[in-house]
Amino acid sequence: MSEPPDEFEWIARVLRPLAKNAPEALDLSDDAAAIPMRPGFDLVVSQDGTVEGVHFLADDAPDLVARKLLRVNLSDLAGKGAEPYGYFLAIAWPARFGWPEREAFARGLEEDQAHFGLKLFGGDTTATPGPLVASVTILGWVPAGRMVQRAGATPGDVVLVSGTIGDGVLGLRAAKGELVGVSYEQSAWLAARYRLPEPRLRLGNPLRALAHAAADVSDGLIADAGHIAEASGVGVELALDRLPLSEPAQAWLATVADPVAARVELATGGDDYEVVCTASPAHAGELIAAAKAVGLAMTEVGTVTAEPGVRVFADGREVAVARRGYVHR
Amino acid sequence: MSEPPDEFEWIARVLRPLAKNAPEALDLSDDAAAIPMRPGFDLVVSQDGTVEGVHFLADDAPDLVARKLLRVNLSDLAGKGAEPYGYFLAIAWPARFGWPEREAFARGLEEDQAHFGLKLFGGDTTATPGPLVASVTILGWVPAGRMVQRAGATPGDVVLVSGTIGDGVLGLRAAKGELVGVSYEQSAWLAARYRLPEPRLRLGNPLRALAHAAADVSDGLIADAGHIAEASGVGVELALDRLPLSEPAQAWLATVADPVAARVELATGGDDYEVVCTASPAHAGELIAAAKAVGLAMTEVGTVTAEPGVRVFADGREVAVARRGYVHR
Repeated sequence: MSEPPDEFEWIARVLRPLAKNAPEALDLSDDAAAIPMRPGFDLVVSQDGTVEGVHFLADDAPDLVARKLLRVNLSDLAGKGAEPYGYFLAIAWPARFGWPEREAFARGLEEDQAHFGLKLFGGDTTATPGPLVASVTILGWVPAGRMVQRAGATPGDVVLVSGTIGDGVLGLRAAKGELVGVSYEQSAWLAARYRLPEPRLRLGNPLRALAHAAADVSDGLIADAGHIAEASGVGVELALDRLPLSEPAQAWLATVADPVAARVELATGGDDYEVVCTASPAHAGELIAAAKAVGLAMTEVGTVTAEPGVRVFADGREVAVARRGYVHR
Repeated sequence: MSEPPDEFEWIARVLRPLAKNAPEALDLSDDAAAIPMRPGFDLVVSQDGTVEGVHFLADDAPDLVARKLLRVNLSDLAGKGAEPYGYFLAIAWPARFGWPEREAFARGLEEDQAHFGLKLFGGDTTATPGPLVASVTILGWVPAGRMVQRAGATPGDVVLVSGTIGDGVLGLRAAKGELVGVSYEQSAWLAARYRLPEPRLRLGNPLRALAHAAADVSDGLIADAGHIAEASGVGVELALDRLPLSEPAQAWLATVADPVAARVELATGGDDYEVVCTASPAHAGELIAAAKAVGLAMTEVGTVTAEPGVRVFADGREVAVARRGYVHR
């Protein structure tokens, strides 16, 4: 079909099925959604977007782009201890995205909606003469007053991180075919983890019960721990030797000339979508056990200090870090 | 400054002041906002965006672009009978938008935030190799279960519209210097109305009390009345002779060769940001009086029919309308 889809057809044919069973969405036949209150809960709202040529490449599969977009937003909820509820999608389509590409994009949304128990509540679609730009506004629930904030870290807290760190940056390189020193299988595993991160939503209960502060690791471990420190008016010290690394990341690390510089890369590369949090030393063990009970590793990687700033150590010596993480412009 | 602003600096210097006095926004130092419930109310959520080269031109003033973006979203709330609360801003900046342009954009937001009692709750900012793309997710409140929907129009209802229709499409032409047949002052008035629409928020109480269905007029009166009809499973008949027209629009109409075709243009051009609604004949007079009491004209322009579809009449004869309004691609 040469004519690009019009908004109403696109909503009716492709988006409406994504909003079924969501009374909030009014069948996408209205220009607003009506969200009823949930007594005893706060609504958590976060936004994350994706831009063709910045966050993904023009030849990436539309369904994977859509799924990653949902997942980075779900990761924001995971870092706040929130339960997913629904989302709004604002999207500006380039002319080359006709029906097949839009349908593939919607299939990706549908797949992850089902996987994560999420519904489409509404959105806005338009044309653009430029690259594809999409933004998700995601809604989640937390018990009233219990959103785990960046602010709240206390001197003496330990800093913990879920899963493994550095797979995001290695995965991006693997996806571009630029990663050397690892096997084909390891490279494919890293690329898959980069393309489809796994939001750590299962940590919601343990975080709300035991963490003082938390955020997801999207910009890089050092950057995101730094955001927690700044919002809390404290500092953090991170030990690069303690970084939890996947087997493929360990294999890569064994091949590099400068392992300390390599660890800095892993801790600043971003796109990991793990959760970094702080907890009192008395509760750290309990948090690790609670994470293990839901199938996730949680590793101590540092401590919270009274003095502001971020300090990074390797082999007991301080390491100068020029750039803490990914900087959005 | 040649280096483009980084996200964190831009948030701290320019956006944070827009979120002061909004505890929901956590000083924009978190990656999510926490929205507490308001007992007895539903949250109304709507999204509208703007794309450079589609909705505005590259040489339009950034503060006016920002203000119009807020206003088209506020107009969505007005059409639902909702009270403004706060908003999220997702924006993809081209490299040429440095500090001065971003600060101008933020000044526009600040001005209309103050004017409409709105606060910034959060957002997402990124770089783009393409044109500026921005999307607002706006939140408002309505008493629980009382959002005025598109669905709800009943056969026998009258169709009413606020203010005047057609100034949007004439204003766009005036802004481009392409409008002939009107005075300089009339052209300037129309262009200003196109650039800075006035969301009809004062209609909230009357609409919730008296309207069966409502929406704002963004795509064009015929298109938006058609959306109401479709969502309600009914039809509408609209009388072009009854279109409420501003003095400048009347002046323009007096110069055209085909007044019926010209009225079709006014009723399909869009960008009016008035409210179209339906009400029982018994309540129409009360709705008109209630609108007048808040300083707004409300005019009967048609009726709701049992038979689906949109029919348009002029001088008692049916007019064929090829295109009901603006179609987003």
